[in-house]
Amino acid sequence: MSTRVGVLGATGAVGQRLIQLLVPHPEFEIAALTASSSSAGRTYRDAAKWRVDTPIPDDVADITVVGTDPDEVPDDVDLLFSSLPSDVGASVEPAFVEEGYVVSSNSSNGRMDDDVPLTIPEINADHLDLIEVQRDNRGWDGALLKNPNCSTITMVPTLAALDEFGLERVHVSTLQAVSGAGYSGVTSMEIIDNVIPHIGGEADKMETESRKLLGSFDGAGIELHGADVSASCNRVPTLDGHLENVWADLADDPDPAAVAEAFRSYPSIDLHSSPEQLIEVFEEFDRPQPRLDRNLGGGMAVSAGGIETTSNGIQYNCLAHNTMRGAAGASILNGELLLEEGYL
Amino acid sequence: MSTRVGVLGATGAVGQRLIQLLVPHPEFEIAALTASSSSAGRTYRDAAKWRVDTPIPDDVADITVVGTDPDEVPDDVDLLFSSLPSDVGASVEPAFVEEGYVVSSNSSNGRMDDDVPLTIPEINADHLDLIEVQRDNRGWDGALLKNPNCSTITMVPTLAALDEFGLERVHVSTLQAVSGAGYSGVTSMEIIDNVIPHIGGEADKMETESRKLLGSFDGAGIELHGADVSASCNRVPTLDGHLENVWADLADDPDPAAVAEAFRSYPSIDLHSSPEQLIEVFEEFDRPQPRLDRNLGGGMAVSAGGIETTSNGIQYNCLAHNTMRGAAGASILNGELLLEEGYL
Amino acid sequence: MSTRVGVLGATGAVGQRLIQLLVPHPEFEIAALTASSSSAGRTYRDAAKWRVDTPIPDDVADITVVGTDPDEVPDDVDLLFSSLPSDVGASVEPAFVEEGYVVSSNSSNGRMDDDVPLTIPEINADHLDLIEVQRDNRGWDGALLKNPNCSTITMVPTLAALDEFGLERVHVSTLQAVSGAGYSGVTSMEIIDNVIPHIGGEADKMETESRKLLGSFDGAGIELHGADVSASCNRVPTLDGHLENVWADLADDPDPAAVAEAFRSYPSIDLHSSPEQLIEVFEEFDRPQPRLDRNLGGGMAVSAGGIETTSNGIQYNCLAHNTMRGAAGASILNGELLLEEGYL
Amino acid sequence: MSTRVGVLGATGAVGQRLIQLLVPHPEFEIAALTASSSSAGRTYRDAAKWRVDTPIPDDVADITVVGTDPDEVPDDVDLLFSSLPSDVGASVEPAFVEEGYVVSSNSSNGRMDDDVPLTIPEINADHLDLIEVQRDNRGWDGALLKNPNCSTITMVPTLAALDEFGLERVHVSTLQAVSGAGYSGVTSMEIIDNVIPHIGGEADKMETESRKLLGSFDGAGIELHGADVSASCNRVPTLDGHLENVWADLADDPDPAAVAEAFRSYPSIDLHSSPEQLIEVFEEFDRPQPRLDRNLGGGMAVSAGGIETTSNGIQYNCLAHNTMRGAAGASILNGELLLEEGYL
Repeated sequence: MSTRVGVLGATGAVGQRLIQLLVPHPEFEIAALTASSSSAGRTYRDAAKWRVDTPIPDDVADITVVGTDPDEVPDDVDLLFSSLPSDVGASVEPAFVEEGYVVSSNSSNGRMDDDVPLTIPEINADHLDLIEVQRDNRGWDGALLKNPNCSTITMVPTLAALDEFGLERVHVSTLQAVSGAGYSGVTSMEIIDNVIPHIGGEADKMETESRKLLGSFDGAGIELHGADVSASCNRVPTLDGHLENVWADLADDPDPAAVAEAFRSYPSIDLHSSPEQLIEVFEEFDRPQPRLDRNLGGGMAVSAGGIETTSNGIQYNCLAHNTMRGAAGASILNGELLLEEGYL
Repeated sequence: MSTRVGVLGATGAVGQRLIQLLVPHPEFEIAALTASSSSAGRTYRDAAKWRVDTPIPDDVADITVVGTDPDEVPDDVDLLFSSLPSDVGASVEPAFVEEGYVVSSNSSNGRMDDDVPLTIPEINADHLDLIEVQRDNRGWDGALLKNPNCSTITMVPTLAALDEFGLERVHVSTLQAVSGAGYSGVTSMEIIDNVIPHIGGEADKMETESRKLLGSFDGAGIELHGADVSASCNRVPTLDGHLENVWADLADDPDPAAVAEAFRSYPSIDLHSSPEQLIEVFEEFDRPQPRLDRNLGGGMAVSAGGIETTSNGIQYNCLAHNTMRGAAGASILNGELLLEEGYL
Repeated sequence: MSTRVGVLGATGAVGQRLIQLLVPHPEFEIAALTASSSSAGRTYRDAAKWRVDTPIPDDVADITVVGTDPDEVPDDVDLLFSSLPSDVGASVEPAFVEEGYVVSSNSSNGRMDDDVPLTIPEINADHLDLIEVQRDNRGWDGALLKNPNCSTITMVPTLAALDEFGLERVHVSTLQAVSGAGYSGVTSMEIIDNVIPHIGGEADKMETESRKLLGSFDGAGIELHGADVSASCNRVPTLDGHLENVWADLADDPDPAAVAEAFRSYPSIDLHSSPEQLIEVFEEFDRPQPRLDRNLGGGMAVSAGGIETTSNGIQYNCLAHNTMRGAAGASILNGELLLEEGYL
Repeated sequence: MSTRVGVLGATGAVGQRLIQLLVPHPEFEIAALTASSSSAGRTYRDAAKWRVDTPIPDDVADITVVGTDPDEVPDDVDLLFSSLPSDVGASVEPAFVEEGYVVSSNSSNGRMDDDVPLTIPEINADHLDLIEVQRDNRGWDGALLKNPNCSTITMVPTLAALDEFGLERVHVSTLQAVSGAGYSGVTSMEIIDNVIPHIGGEADKMETESRKLLGSFDGAGIELHGADVSASCNRVPTLDGHLENVWADLADDPDPAAVAEAFRSYPSIDLHSSPEQLIEVFEEFDRPQPRLDRNLGGGMAVSAGGIETTSNGIQYNCLAHNTMRGAAGASILNGELLLEEGYL
């Protein structure tokens, strides 16, 4: 039987992607869509300016949007996907969890909180146990689970695969697609024939979230990974797909073939949205490229290429689809993990 | 009186920029234009598909293009600017110098040769003395001087300014404009909604040329600077202006204000094409941007911004106009230095 | 002595262009800048996010912005340039004119009003006499003068030149730059790798405004030109410069050379911002192109090319810089005409 | 049993699309791939730089490419798809047909020849009977069938649907994607932040081919449709999908609803690659858009929108995927028609 799910913040760009992924999902069934009060009471068709490249099915389009408030969401909804603005999420998500809902959230608020698990299921599924600590701390019945920022997700699978070589220091430069800023986040006058060498708060997220994701759960909390991570984030004129140049200083001295093998053999996980091959490796030096490779594994694979040794380790490039693997797909995969692990 | 100059490879993209800069130049006068044999004998108007955004003056357009051969260039031409393909340059440039011509070359061949000076006048004008070594070695009357690759030039002024803090290691990620590949180098189908994370040979050039530029001339040759430089080069959908994310590990521990001051106070040089302020520093974190800032100082300034401390030094962004400061303007500035220093 | 001028709506994209053009203007001197109440009281530097590619002079940047209200603008300001949103302009512009100000407005409100002159000085300067009718009708001391929409301006000079051949019917398809929608008008997600085949209200403006511009003033009002104009408007991924494909059905049967001659010989006007050559004609079939040709005549020339005969007349392409000739420059040129004709 | 087919000019952009469509095709089986002599003898994997976004199956990649010569193609190949450069096609295609091959060609050579059918199966399948005339004239056993140019195909289905209202005159302005010029046809420096208002020969093709497609076969030849067609062709920075602004002068006076109904009810044809709905009609004025709508009907549908009445008829926009419906898919659909009609 399907799990009844809701989407908090259903009209935005990530909300639309969530719905696009949920409609054909074998385990989940859309039962509630919320938005700000100005949209509440209208049909979804009417409230959202649908911009995804597959049509909305009529039965979803006809759902009446409700306010983003625990009182307005039916009690028989078990799991909520949240793509709220972080300031809204900060106050509303706890309210839902307090009422017993399980929330899989893409919003950036609270990701680094000590008792909030931040997971990529293929990387650190065991961090889910932090939910018990969360429930103890906060007296909650539900649970709040976060996925990381899109630029963090792109890089972390490769870093996890490198950890066997002794990951010590990371420099990463990002070339991020405009969709990462939401539908209206980057104007055309800002980005045509241009690059913007700064994305507010993004470098910080990459530096802290990656250490939490690669950290270890000791029963009481997450011990951050010791790697020193430094990021520089750029917005470029691509629609989808974040490309990243990574340098990893390593304790060991693997050659490019060993690194490629570590990437290729890094295990995926047996969940519906996880790709068979988590990290695809290209031999061509000019790949991966955003437009050509962002849809690998249904948009849920990470790809890498250009692996070369440096004086202290290796350098390489990696790529992921920022609104699939990096946002909507990440939340849904976390939802699948919550279901699998019995939290629903 | 003007120095009579010629352009080797005058019909290409850099050749056109050279002509655009030479036409109003107070010290130089165009006296010869060369191209491949298929263009020789035609007027320049006819041989070149002019794509620069200022019109060619009629007197230049009416010059008859000659072959790229010392026998075809008038003897009273004193200085040649070369923007030949590197394989052509490798054989043709020495032939001209042997005949006594002084060549200021943008072509990549021979840049790392032991007896060929590679200069950015504001940075290492003293390397010009290597010409005496060159003449001794090769029995030449003329001289061959090189400017570095566009992506190298963008970064090196800032590295030179940082050297007072003990420059130890550099990571640099580039976001390079399509004009760097020449007029037809990047097709629209390759780059619209895309990024290409590799430019053949570019990372190598940045890693070796920057160490030569920052090195010291000891009377016999150039001792390379000891910094460890690692580059990752990307092509992005911008027309002009290379943006670079730089991390510099330093022996000292300057704060961002000290770094900004070091950038701003790095001296320019008293040559016609050198800007008054060599490195402009932005306080705004989202600057410099290629489209907004590439024309600073007439396209000959370098700009920097986003300066932040890291655990081992600093990170920042820098930008220069790749076909002005990074190519045609670089060769002309070197020509001005040759004139100033009495090599003509 | 300079005329003291103000800018209504000074912080927007057209407002910034107006200031850029006014700063070096020999006849005008900036004496007041207005904006919405949220900006009033702040310095211009602070109130506007300056995005023009030349810096604001300090003395302009230090002006304190006032509200868009006749009571807040000094009395000794003689001429106001208006780039207000049309709904604001509709109520505010009359309030200023009632107080005796002369307003040269780029806002779309009121352009087709019977007693409001709509002018391109090189085309229909004589329509200025309609101001007397306006003053009689409305009991105003000041005057309200409009310039047309950017897409209309691009085409009308060529249509005016064709009128000697008996202009009967016009089909025009536009390829308009994103700057025409203001800084945030077109998001990057809408327009990268895309075209939007509709711009709200634009086709209508072209169809009605062009007939008014080409019409004749009979002492009491403007008799619209009889041509049947049909437009189709598209937004394309260019930054500046509207390109238009035009078909003109004509009573006569001129060959392309006669049309080119009519374009080239169409007279300019002796005002500061008017280019020497109003319509530049290209012989190359692939010109004019927005990026290459939008800055002709300092952005104030119109260019044309691709002239061919059809079964009923001719077809050709034309281009103008939409925020210069098509907006800010148009208003300033109208201001120069008002000054020249003694309305200030 | 599958029909064994070959692709002439298999390494180019359209050749790759042909292979992408043929691999999963239920009726056709790839049995021969040809290219220029420099590629002959190499595997397809090696000879083609594969740029399509689905991988080549190994068995196709391993095919040894042969020269484009009847002697090198196996006799048991029944149908050849041709995407040769037109100058090559002009000499090579007749040589193949003379040897008895049936050729479905996308190349522009010979499209307007009196005895060469030019077809869009949904529009003028009956023109196939011209093959008998062709065989009589030329003494051929095989057959040569052409599909029209991509920009013609985009518009003609809508014109065919309008013919019931008395189609008299057409003005059409195109906004064409860069892929229409082949992989290297448009450089990035030509088209970023730009539009090119001319495509060599394109307007001519639209004006003549459309009249042949809409013409009638009288047993001996095609009588061209009497409509007067005038085209203006522009290249814009989109990857795929040609958008066209059309004005159709009509004898009758249908309202937009009647036109929309005529579009929607225009019949498709029962062939594998033909979409269920040939012409999709949008009610939204800002649709169709290239990036959002080019893949409708698997890239084989045409879409229309923005229908409005004019003084002499109607205006509207239409869109089709230029390398699918406009090139590779068009040739394959013609191949399906040849099979269905017993020419193989």
